[in-house]
Amino acid sequence: MTEKSTETKVDEAQTAALGLAKRSDDERSEGLRAIADAIDNRHEEILEANEKDVTAGEKLLEEGEYSQALVDRLKLSPSKLESISEMVRSVAAQDDPLEKTLASRRLDDDLELYKLAVPIGVIGTVFESRPDALVQIAALSLKSGNAVILKGGSEASHSNRVLYDIIREATAELPDGWAQLIEAREDVDAMLEMDDSIDLLMPRGSSEFVSYIQDNTSIPVLGHTEGVCHVYVDEDADLEMATEIAYDAKVQYPAVCNAVETLLVHEDVAEEFLPEIATRYEEAGVEMRGDDTARAIVEMNEATEDDWASEYGDLILSIKVVDSLEAAIAHITEYSSKHTESIVTDDADRASTFMRSLDSASVFHNASTRFSDGYRFGLGAEVGISTGKIHARGPVGLEGLTTYKYHLEGDGQLVGTYAGEDAKPFRHEEFDGEWNPGRLSTESE
Amino acid sequence: MTEKSTETKVDEAQTAALGLAKRSDDERSEGLRAIADAIDNRHEEILEANEKDVTAGEKLLEEGEYSQALVDRLKLSPSKLESISEMVRSVAAQDDPLEKTLASRRLDDDLELYKLAVPIGVIGTVFESRPDALVQIAALSLKSGNAVILKGGSEASHSNRVLYDIIREATAELPDGWAQLIEAREDVDAMLEMDDSIDLLMPRGSSEFVSYIQDNTSIPVLGHTEGVCHVYVDEDADLEMATEIAYDAKVQYPAVCNAVETLLVHEDVAEEFLPEIATRYEEAGVEMRGDDTARAIVEMNEATEDDWASEYGDLILSIKVVDSLEAAIAHITEYSSKHTESIVTDDADRASTFMRSLDSASVFHNASTRFSDGYRFGLGAEVGISTGKIHARGPVGLEGLTTYKYHLEGDGQLVGTYAGEDAKPFRHEEFDGEWNPGRLSTESE
Repeated sequence: MTEKSTETKVDEAQTAALGLAKRSDDERSEGLRAIADAIDNRHEEILEANEKDVTAGEKLLEEGEYSQALVDRLKLSPSKLESISEMVRSVAAQDDPLEKTLASRRLDDDLELYKLAVPIGVIGTVFESRPDALVQIAALSLKSGNAVILKGGSEASHSNRVLYDIIREATAELPDGWAQLIEAREDVDAMLEMDDSIDLLMPRGSSEFVSYIQDNTSIPVLGHTEGVCHVYVDEDADLEMATEIAYDAKVQYPAVCNAVETLLVHEDVAEEFLPEIATRYEEAGVEMRGDDTARAIVEMNEATEDDWASEYGDLILSIKVVDSLEAAIAHITEYSSKHTESIVTDDADRASTFMRSLDSASVFHNASTRFSDGYRFGLGAEVGISTGKIHARGPVGLEGLTTYKYHLEGDGQLVGTYAGEDAKPFRHEEFDGEWNPGRLSTESE
Repeated sequence: MTEKSTETKVDEAQTAALGLAKRSDDERSEGLRAIADAIDNRHEEILEANEKDVTAGEKLLEEGEYSQALVDRLKLSPSKLESISEMVRSVAAQDDPLEKTLASRRLDDDLELYKLAVPIGVIGTVFESRPDALVQIAALSLKSGNAVILKGGSEASHSNRVLYDIIREATAELPDGWAQLIEAREDVDAMLEMDDSIDLLMPRGSSEFVSYIQDNTSIPVLGHTEGVCHVYVDEDADLEMATEIAYDAKVQYPAVCNAVETLLVHEDVAEEFLPEIATRYEEAGVEMRGDDTARAIVEMNEATEDDWASEYGDLILSIKVVDSLEAAIAHITEYSSKHTESIVTDDADRASTFMRSLDSASVFHNASTRFSDGYRFGLGAEVGISTGKIHARGPVGLEGLTTYKYHLEGDGQLVGTYAGEDAKPFRHEEFDGEWNPGRLSTESE
């Protein structure tokens, strides 16, 4: 078969998006359950394709091109496939993010405005080498009624191809072309130019990669670059609580973006707090890098300017002693990636000042930064975390893949009636009501 | 005085934005009332500066560089200044778009998540030559707690400078630097590069200008390019109503983006409807450009392919006869700028199909496209109209200048407690509650 161009695929996705927007939650969720069933029924075929990727990956591992971690992420197994189909069923079971009336306003008698949740349209995605990412992204897009362009890592091309075929075949009842697979790196660059037809980009990968996408497109991007998160231990902190929070925030899962990278400690409690947390960190194998004041209290490596801006993603952490809440806020304002910051204090006023002064997506009081996550926040399926401030911020649920549209039901109203000398006034009353297509004209028949 | 660089100005705005975000609605609205008073008290000074711009503009008009319309827009008068200060007072009187709790969720006992409305941060604006635009944009930004970079047309530089000085002096109680004026075209290009410090761009001007901004920045852009709006007269339309709507949508104010540009008419009613509307349009001096079928019914100019994609902004309109609702939808899908479309019909099912099938910001049933407007929609002050689909869509009120932030109040919770074998389950219950800084720690004292 002749491979279609990226433009053709995106055109097909645009057409499919209009059709998909009209499908009910039942139809979309039925499609998701069909995908889950097909994955369950076709283990052999998927694992065979995956084996080719893994073999090629192992060869490149021997040649020193790939890391062991990359090859591990590539590898599928029957139990991995079961967890993938389980994930798809759980997305199907989520509340419908569409067909909601977000607001209803009576502009005048028989002139009713409804703000309705609708899909965004066509979502372009580029993701890491794990083949389960393809299925997850396709599932979230379908649940939210969006067409999707899928670009996975070339390492996973055989696995991605078979999973993509399964998804298309399982959703044959839905508008053809709602999911599109692209495979070449050049296709990504083509996608970045298509601001007339792609409504949102969702890149996943390293900070550098997400930044590259952001800097090279005028399409809105939903993604996160890095997580340089802070915990500030205030002079009025419960130090036992502070120790547990600082430990949990670093050690519970150091590789993720909501782990703490810098611990700020008020000078009045540093002498008591630092030895306590240092003991705990040392047990867990955490490398501490401190400023001079911290190093005078506990022996540790020296923190350089680079450390304050580093997302280690590892058991490493920088420590700075500050002389005031204001100094803590100033440090965070300068170095934070605006992801998540937490203050530990029993003083309500200082907690309030900290939380109101910082321009980060999530600001916490007496809780671990690790709570910054769609599942823990109760958002249902997590679409991603956004360090942008527009449209979606912080942990993003299915809502982040929707936008809105205004529906106005009238019975012949003209703007001329509401303008000029004898302008009729508007009523502009909020009311509880769902958009009921053609309701007014039906009543008047 | 040495002029500061654009970078310095944007840095100052960023710092001011953090301070402004903590100011109450009372403080921000007090600043707005002070601006209005200062404008009222300093007419002489403003009109003197404006006179310089107008004189320079008239010279360029003689030389054929400027249009009369541009010079007219430049010109201020005492009554114009009164309407400007009135506008500022009305922005002050709007409901506070900030300090709202958008959602509250109890993740677990004493672990409460609040989603709060907050300012976006720093907004970059570039606007047309009317000096009142500077005051309006500054007022909307201040009401929503945002710092703003103001770039007006060079034709209005004297007027802009004095209005800007008045705004700064009147808001001396607020964080210094919340409003910044830039004056050179190069400064706009510098601004487009500053995606680390400018959070949103709001360009106003021609379609070409807004498109230029969108294509040359990775900063999110809130604006509208063009309005190619449609009215579809269905086979089951009340033809008297259809005539009034088609007339209002074109004639009531043809220069605006929500005016209709193309009229689509079902073939079954074309012979009755077209002569009726043609008589009305001819009285109003509307030039009609039709396809062959329309021209066989009523004498009019021929519509070319270009006409279907044109925003005339004038008393010109294209007319096409279609054989079905589907053909009307297909035409709109191909040529619409996704602004506003209206169907006139007594058939509820066809109204529903039309409204659900079209991916435009506003879709109307039996109402004039001219209702697509922030004031008429009841959004209060209108920030602009967005033809983008992300963040804000259609007519945008002050809400469009806000984003949100998560505040989490805990009493020492760790993620480790909610993970692994004996994971404690989350409660994830929505509740009615306002974020009360440090509430939990206060209770436990």
